[in-house]
Amino acid sequence: MSAEARLKQLGITLPAVPKPVANYVPYRLAGNLLFLSGQGPRDAQGGMLTGKVGAEVSVEEGYNRARLIGLGLLAATRDALGSLDRVEAILKVLGMVNAVPDFKDQPKVINGCSDLFVEVFGDQIGRHARSAVGMGSLPNQISVEIEAVLAVKA
Amino acid sequence: MSAEARLKQLGITLPAVPKPVANYVPYRLAGNLLFLSGQGPRDAQGGMLTGKVGAEVSVEEGYNRARLIGLGLLAATRDALGSLDRVEAILKVLGMVNAVPDFKDQPKVINGCSDLFVEVFGDQIGRHARSAVGMGSLPNQISVEIEAVLAVKA
Amino acid sequence: MSAEARLKQLGITLPAVPKPVANYVPYRLAGNLLFLSGQGPRDAQGGMLTGKVGAEVSVEEGYNRARLIGLGLLAATRDALGSLDRVEAILKVLGMVNAVPDFKDQPKVINGCSDLFVEVFGDQIGRHARSAVGMGSLPNQISVEIEAVLAVKA
Repeated sequence: MSAEARLKQLGITLPAVPKPVANYVPYRLAGNLLFLSGQGPRDAQGGMLTGKVGAEVSVEEGYNRARLIGLGLLAATRDALGSLDRVEAILKVLGMVNAVPDFKDQPKVINGCSDLFVEVFGDQIGRHARSAVGMGSLPNQISVEIEAVLAVKA
Repeated sequence: MSAEARLKQLGITLPAVPKPVANYVPYRLAGNLLFLSGQGPRDAQGGMLTGKVGAEVSVEEGYNRARLIGLGLLAATRDALGSLDRVEAILKVLGMVNAVPDFKDQPKVINGCSDLFVEVFGDQIGRHARSAVGMGSLPNQISVEIEAVLAVKA
Repeated sequence: MSAEARLKQLGITLPAVPKPVANYVPYRLAGNLLFLSGQGPRDAQGGMLTGKVGAEVSVEEGYNRARLIGLGLLAATRDALGSLDRVEAILKVLGMVNAVPDFKDQPKVINGCSDLFVEVFGDQIGRHARSAVGMGSLPNQISVEIEAVLAVKA
C-alpha cells in the first residue's frame, strides 16, 4: 500500500506546514536528498508544546509530542515532493529531547516519530538510521525537536 | 550578482580558515555535497569568544558571534571550492547555542549566520533548512558552534 | 594498505553490530552515502558505559569510550558494505559528549573515535569533517554518542 493510501487508511490528516520561526525554510531538496528543518510539537491550534521532559513532561507525553512532530515532518515532505509516495527512504533522523540532565529515555520519546514513519511508509521505506539525544535547551522551551534526511525516488 | 561580487560590495573580507583544534579537517567534499565542520566564533585576532548565552552573553552578542562563525564557514567553503560562486545551495545548517537550561532564543542567535548567508548568496541559493538548538556545553565554552552541508554546482 | 588489512595488522577484532535500542536501524545506505546511527560505548560484554564526562568520567576515559564507539561504527560499516575496503571517505562525524555544563574538552574526547578512523583508513580516506559538542543528557546516561556519514566507492 502506498504511503498516501496508508495515511488515509489510518485516518490521519496532516497539519499545515509550520511557518519557520526565523530566517530559514522548512526543507531543501538537492538531487535525490531532501533535508527537513527541525520542527517542534504543535497542538491542534498550532500552539507550541513546551516543558522539560523528565520534569514537567512525562516520557509518554514526550512520545506523543514526537509523533506530532512526525506529522509536521510528513507535511513538509508532501509540500516538498507533491506526494509522500515519492519518498524512497527515510535515511536519518536526529531526535532532540529537551530533558533534565539525568534523563535516560530519549529513545522511548523519539519512537513517537519513528513509529509513525514506519506505520505510514512500512519497514522498507520507513525504517531509518537515528540518533536520539538530550539537549540543554530548545527554542521557546519546546519539549522535542526533530530533523530528518530523506531519499527521493528518481 | 555573484556571491563573490556581493561579498566585495558588502566590504567583507573573510578570515583565515580556522585550524581544527583536534584530529579532523575543516571540510570534506563528496560528489556535489560539501560537509563543513562545526566552527566557533573568533574575534579579529583569532581568539575564541566564550560564555553561556542567556547568562554572561546576551542574545544580541550571540547573534554577532553566529555571524562571525558564518564568515568562518564561508572561508572554509572558498578554501574547498576556490570560489563561493561554485555554491549551488546552502542545504542545511545545524546551529548549536551554548545556553543556560531555560534559554528560549536559539533561533534569534543562529539568525546571525543565516542572515549573512542570505545577504551573500541571495534567497535562492542562501536560504536553507535549519535546526537551532541549545547544547549542554561546547568546546572551550565557546558560545555558539555551527556546522553546515552545501550543494556544489556540477 | 587496505583498511581490512590494517585492522588485522593492528590486531583489532570488531564487536558485533549493536542491536538498536528502539525503532530504528544501525545504518541506511542511499546511493554512495552511508548514514550510521548514533552509538554509545560498550564494554567487552556489551554493557553500556555510563556517567557524565567532567564529573565521574575523566577526559581520558571519555577518549577510550569514544574509541570503543568507533569500533562499533566500523562494525556497522562492515555489516552495511561487506568490507571496510569499500569506504571511499569518512565524510562527517557528530561527536556528542554527555558532559557537565562547564566542560571544555569535547574535542579531546571525540579524538578517541577520530584517531581510530585515521589509524584504520589512513589520512586520505579517514580524515573527516566533524563537530564535537556537549549534550544535556544521553540515552541511559551513556558518556558519549557518535554518529557518522560515509561515502562509499562506486
